[in-house]
Amino acid sequence: MSKKRDLVLFIASSLDGYIATKDESLEWLFNIEGEGDNGFSEFYDTIDTILMGKRTYDWILNQDLKEFPYKNKECYVFTSSFAENTEDVKFVNGDLTNFIDKLKRQNGKNIWIVGGGELLHSFIKEKLVDELIISIAPTLLGKGISLFKEGDYQLNLSLKQMRNFNQFVELHYEVKK
Amino acid sequence: MSKKRDLVLFIASSLDGYIATKDESLEWLFNIEGEGDNGFSEFYDTIDTILMGKRTYDWILNQDLKEFPYKNKECYVFTSSFAENTEDVKFVNGDLTNFIDKLKRQNGKNIWIVGGGELLHSFIKEKLVDELIISIAPTLLGKGISLFKEGDYQLNLSLKQMRNFNQFVELHYEVKK
Repeated sequence: MSKKRDLVLFIASSLDGYIATKDESLEWLFNIEGEGDNGFSEFYDTIDTILMGKRTYDWILNQDLKEFPYKNKECYVFTSSFAENTEDVKFVNGDLTNFIDKLKRQNGKNIWIVGGGELLHSFIKEKLVDELIISIAPTLLGKGISLFKEGDYQLNLSLKQMRNFNQFVELHYEVKK
Repeated sequence: MSKKRDLVLFIASSLDGYIATKDESLEWLFNIEGEGDNGFSEFYDTIDTILMGKRTYDWILNQDLKEFPYKNKECYVFTSSFAENTEDVKFVNGDLTNFIDKLKRQNGKNIWIVGGGELLHSFIKEKLVDELIISIAPTLLGKGISLFKEGDYQLNLSLKQMRNFNQFVELHYEVKK
């Protein structure tokens, strides 16, 4: 029997916990000296499925990219309204926990939850996230869009690995169940 | 000429940036497996002066300790109202920046700013902090008292060291000026 797939948050954050400025810009992040792609392609090889919220999906479409960046992965976009599937993504609404339970029981590599915000908040509250890989940028942003929202939950983690890519510190935790 | 003294924040925080629960409890922190004193006594030897806000001072007094824990250091408590100096601490009010500039020009070891909250916020905004040493606990608390308050500032940092004490990750940054 194959190991159950893990649902992993992989994201960069400022030291004070912001993933973007209030206007959803990542410019502050791109100017910091890292190393290679700061572990992204290594991580990307460990997953075959991607989850994101509608807002993150719209943000990606607005970036004026030549093509959708996650073409070779199974990509699900969570939305509360109806939307037609595209060549690149499937839209999902309805019971989150049920959907994720089914997904985790399928064979495959790990599952990446992209981005913070509302979707991540639901996942954290429902204890659906198995691992966190957070790249901490050497910046205090002062304000912006928070990685973690305030809520009535507490998760105990277990440190799996720490390393740095030049100025970025990557912390890798497992969520204790 | 001796090196100018640095003002250092040394503190533990949850991964989501809280230093205590809403009721100012640190119980969640004491149950986590660290190593020795997680670098505290090593750090404590590098400082001879301590700064804290009145609220932190009152919190310490309420802990029912046998004696004031920082007896062998020069200890300043910042307050907006008048208070009589004690055997253990001197109270300070008035212009923060001016006071800190004078303090940094005196000979001595580094200066520790204890705690987060209002005092730290003023120090960060005025760019008075030279180094940050943050011990990240393997916990998402969900809510509590934030280490960093939201504000109109951005600080660029430089990673000086990273290490772990069992489950605690200590990140050591210099503030770029």
